[in-house]
Amino acid sequence: MNHINRPTLLIDKIKAESNIQQMMAKANHTGVVFRPHFKTHQSIEIGKLFRKQGVNKITVSSVEMARFFAEDGWNDITIAFPVNLREINEINNLAARITLNLLAESVFSLKFLETQLKHKAGIFIKIDTGYHRTGLEPDNPEIQKMIDFLESSQKIKFLGFLTHAGHTYHAKGKEEVIRIMDSAKTQLINLKKKHLSKFPNLIISYGDTPSCSMAEDCSGFDEIRPGNFVYYDVMQYHLGSCNLNDIAVIAACPVVAVHPQREELVIYGGAVHLSKEAIEADNGFKLYGYVVPITETGWGEPIPGAYVSSLSQEHGIIKMPKNQLQQFKPGGLIGILPIHSCLTANLLNEQTIL
Amino acid sequence: MNHINRPTLLIDKIKAESNIQQMMAKANHTGVVFRPHFKTHQSIEIGKLFRKQGVNKITVSSVEMARFFAEDGWNDITIAFPVNLREINEINNLAARITLNLLAESVFSLKFLETQLKHKAGIFIKIDTGYHRTGLEPDNPEIQKMIDFLESSQKIKFLGFLTHAGHTYHAKGKEEVIRIMDSAKTQLINLKKKHLSKFPNLIISYGDTPSCSMAEDCSGFDEIRPGNFVYYDVMQYHLGSCNLNDIAVIAACPVVAVHPQREELVIYGGAVHLSKEAIEADNGFKLYGYVVPITETGWGEPIPGAYVSSLSQEHGIIKMPKNQLQQFKPGGLIGILPIHSCLTANLLNEQTIL
Repeated sequence: MNHINRPTLLIDKIKAESNIQQMMAKANHTGVVFRPHFKTHQSIEIGKLFRKQGVNKITVSSVEMARFFAEDGWNDITIAFPVNLREINEINNLAARITLNLLAESVFSLKFLETQLKHKAGIFIKIDTGYHRTGLEPDNPEIQKMIDFLESSQKIKFLGFLTHAGHTYHAKGKEEVIRIMDSAKTQLINLKKKHLSKFPNLIISYGDTPSCSMAEDCSGFDEIRPGNFVYYDVMQYHLGSCNLNDIAVIAACPVVAVHPQREELVIYGGAVHLSKEAIEADNGFKLYGYVVPITETGWGEPIPGAYVSSLSQEHGIIKMPKNQLQQFKPGGLIGILPIHSCLTANLLNEQTIL
Repeated sequence: MNHINRPTLLIDKIKAESNIQQMMAKANHTGVVFRPHFKTHQSIEIGKLFRKQGVNKITVSSVEMARFFAEDGWNDITIAFPVNLREINEINNLAARITLNLLAESVFSLKFLETQLKHKAGIFIKIDTGYHRTGLEPDNPEIQKMIDFLESSQKIKFLGFLTHAGHTYHAKGKEEVIRIMDSAKTQLINLKKKHLSKFPNLIISYGDTPSCSMAEDCSGFDEIRPGNFVYYDVMQYHLGSCNLNDIAVIAACPVVAVHPQREELVIYGGAVHLSKEAIEADNGFKLYGYVVPITETGWGEPIPGAYVSSLSQEHGIIKMPKNQLQQFKPGGLIGILPIHSCLTANLLNEQTIL
């Protein structure tokens, strides 16, 4: 690890491949289309690991990311984000080259697309199945108006209904996660039944890593779009989606100061590297990451009693019992298991695949 | 603002120049060296605004940033971060070209530098005056050991004592902020007096925007290093460092969905654009930014009752009363006054100076 001088994402390829394999097997087992979300890794190399296992449809969360992966040959991409009408030129460039699927939740956006699209694009209607971030609730009359519009559309192909059950992240355990998934399934299946006669090919598409990880299978949906599972993280471990040992990334950070009297280490690794995503307990306790030793070939088990206790722009503070602290000196390296790997991977420009 | 298609930092040049001018005047008034922190803007163009007003010494928080500004001709730079020994090669490259000042807080780091430095560099001993993030408390015996070592050092020039009173960010108002500043001043002056006979040129250097903004003058220190004041932000407004009207940046974000029934807007602008820095109230209320309308030439007053209520990777959710909501449609633009402008400016690659 001698080449690492600044905060760097270390990716354990074997763990990432195993995470991909397991999710892929679950999708294949129930005949569900596997369209993984690539916002987590945003990496051409990690994309190739998916491709090697037979994935050929992907999800991203911005037009920019769609272009990035289209340039590497991905040609069936869903931008799972309410369509940004201000990027219509770039959307047209992409729609000319690849199978491009967009999301909408208003007739207003559909009308804009119908007049401005120069090439065919697919549209999912985004459904809010309980997360209340984006999407229309299943009984919102706007859905019928959109479908009426789509029936006569020349340029937009109606693909079906899509949801992201992000409220699984606030669930209190596996039972509640599965209940959320089942509720989303019922809501989407009802919409599908209602409109299947006019659109016999419409599908229902479902996302989120916690439920796709915890469920025995994903039957009932036509497509799943989990993303975080490729790396997992401390948040997913807390939710019960994975074991600590499944987490496939750490941020490797230089140690810059050791304070035995405060039982603290200072690392070069702050909010601009790890993100300020935290796990909070009731008493105001905040945790920005677990701490692992770096080994010759990767990293070890979490150091007992050690955690990232605060972050400023470039500094991270690690609380660590004195007896553990003694092994570290300025100039050394230490690893942080991230709270939210999507944000940490997005921030760390320097990445090393082990 | 028709050119803006993705989350973009808008910088009001007139406000930024006025903020620089005021802080510069305060430093000049008391004959204190003004060495502004450039981590806030990390911008060559904004650096030029400082240069135009006569600034020629700067502060940064990483070796990378020092190189970035050295390439634009800045030749007197303090890296206000515990020296990262793993970047010794880059430090040597910089020390060969410019006046480079580093921070240390252990004899261990000094010994490493003494053997590895190829060119002269300056060293500040970082003092913890109450923030407890980095630095040595004034009575820590390590300080005397470091000074003994520095007395006979060939390559390291001892510059003095430096502190960052970051605990002003947790203060309950101006009175407490000034108390923190005065306490830091007393601690640094005592250290200075103790060592001045052996190092007659040693200086004491002080940072942080809240106290440098609120204090009538900065007398007693030899140098001040505030940074955030160039842009200010909602956090500084809450602390009392500035007026809302002094804030010189917003994130301009595309509106992608409007939900009147929930009184919410969805914007393209999430944690990877704004950062997850928040202001929290006791009842669990969290605020990720204020909301302003975008005008032909800049932005207007905050929209009453509107705020960014949650962020995921690319999505932002804005709560807004229904009567205000009606003016927005997908494809429109809206502005966010950031909670912490340093992090938002760091994240937004696309920037427009008005």
